[in-house]
Amino acid sequence: MTTVGELGEDRLVARLCEGLPLGTDVVVGTGDDCAVVGTGEVLTLLKTDAVVEGVHFLAGEKARRVGWKAVARVLSDFAAMGGVPGELLVTLAMGPRVALSWVEDLYRGMQDCLAKHGGVIVGGETTSLPEGASTLISVAGRGMVHREDLVTRSGGQVGDAIYVTGRLGGSLRGKHLDFTPRLAEARWLVRHHVITAMMDLSDGLAQDLPRLARMSGVGFELDHDTIPRNEAVEVAEALGDGEDYELLFTSADEIGEGWAARFPDLEVTRIGQLVGGSSDEIAGGWEHFRMGNRMFGPTSTSSA
Amino acid sequence: MTTVGELGEDRLVARLCEGLPLGTDVVVGTGDDCAVVGTGEVLTLLKTDAVVEGVHFLAGEKARRVGWKAVARVLSDFAAMGGVPGELLVTLAMGPRVALSWVEDLYRGMQDCLAKHGGVIVGGETTSLPEGASTLISVAGRGMVHREDLVTRSGGQVGDAIYVTGRLGGSLRGKHLDFTPRLAEARWLVRHHVITAMMDLSDGLAQDLPRLARMSGVGFELDHDTIPRNEAVEVAEALGDGEDYELLFTSADEIGEGWAARFPDLEVTRIGQLVGGSSDEIAGGWEHFRMGNRMFGPTSTSSA
Repeated sequence: MTTVGELGEDRLVARLCEGLPLGTDVVVGTGDDCAVVGTGEVLTLLKTDAVVEGVHFLAGEKARRVGWKAVARVLSDFAAMGGVPGELLVTLAMGPRVALSWVEDLYRGMQDCLAKHGGVIVGGETTSLPEGASTLISVAGRGMVHREDLVTRSGGQVGDAIYVTGRLGGSLRGKHLDFTPRLAEARWLVRHHVITAMMDLSDGLAQDLPRLARMSGVGFELDHDTIPRNEAVEVAEALGDGEDYELLFTSADEIGEGWAARFPDLEVTRIGQLVGGSSDEIAGGWEHFRMGNRMFGPTSTSSA
Repeated sequence: MTTVGELGEDRLVARLCEGLPLGTDVVVGTGDDCAVVGTGEVLTLLKTDAVVEGVHFLAGEKARRVGWKAVARVLSDFAAMGGVPGELLVTLAMGPRVALSWVEDLYRGMQDCLAKHGGVIVGGETTSLPEGASTLISVAGRGMVHREDLVTRSGGQVGDAIYVTGRLGGSLRGKHLDFTPRLAEARWLVRHHVITAMMDLSDGLAQDLPRLARMSGVGFELDHDTIPRNEAVEVAEALGDGEDYELLFTSADEIGEGWAARFPDLEVTRIGQLVGGSSDEIAGGWEHFRMGNRMFGPTSTSSA
């Protein structure tokens, strides 16, 4: 019997999506940061993303930070397509003994993020889990993107430079809970440059860059020495830690002075280029199921 | 310390949603079957809904039936607003030892339902839970409704008759897994009659009718003897079992001959009327958290 753990997340999703019929309104289906649907000048981005206690946050974590993270992850995906946040639905699945104050703080954290970056919560549901189960918070909703601003993972061209925003690695020290979704940066990029492919870095450059290259049907050369790293972070950690939530994008343009004038506190770094053929995977990065729970070790810290 | 279990689902959701800012595009926010957003003639319905092993289905249940249910619940909510299904995103949260064949059958069940009733899956994600945790399947997405067809829970008027489709109670014998989302019926109703308020019956008439009345700012008189019941179902079970997924709606119109000609195999029954003032709750019905796990008893059968 094959289990989902043996298959791994990417291959599981690919297998499940094989042969799914596409509606006529579907511009981008599975495999990108968001699904894109619609027919007019303004397209709809659809996204759902869940955080799970013991996987994406520790049981004792401050609820307000967890709420920020749950919402910011979705906003980061809207950013990665060149879009803006719209209306969100929140699903809380938890056992009956969760403190009301924890849930209220969770919502405060969500509101903090939305107040700063846009988007509104318009509904959702709560569902009861068996006592002691890990709390799960799923955020689903829509964003909007002008058709001419839309960037997918699949438009990368041979010769394009590969860029990342910010610095990578070491996110577990705290950034994974309070990162800034790069909405303003992504919108500036799509309005000022020809961005051929873009995604947000959630599973680590070592997983995510090969995904972007595969979707674009190209290979890549990565200059490991140029990867911008956070303090006290090794190259392997910058590649593999994950949860950076920085933008990874490709362009034939030089991204430089204009960026620095607009975003003086956030660097953008050229880390390689797209090449012909296809490239081997980079060692490092983590994947649900296959690698187990990389963040918090192979056995979960949750109370389940 | 107050827990979410002590507060109960309705009051929890109400508390969390207090004071949420509404975007200018929001037509209907929290508290209805779907959120409704948009500005044009065709509005967007947003919905998210999760089914959990041990709560909404048993651990040993056929995956194909679980998939049907997960999707049909969302379609039922689009129906309840007078709308049609659009694009859906699927979140699978499960432990690493779930069999691949189980997940594939789950998707087959989802596809069965979509092929019959409309809508397409355009993406989603898988997320790993600690080993042995209950599997959770969340379906989120959008539907569409013409502005003039939109029906909410809040439009009921004093004097309107209260109707239900089909027969109630005993859903746990099987119907809760293979019910028909009443899309065709709801669309016929909104096109042929003035339907003032509508919702789908998920938590049982005893919970859901008071909700509709409260949202409409009216009371109700329920004629218990007229409640259409499935075979070998007592009135209390028809009120309280839940998971009927029939339509509950109000109208000043007589719904009769036209319906019978269009839907000869499905009855529609007048069970009472809306009145002035407000009404006490009806005994029966179940609520997440407060009542515990009514379907499968107070202790979960899941392996978590």
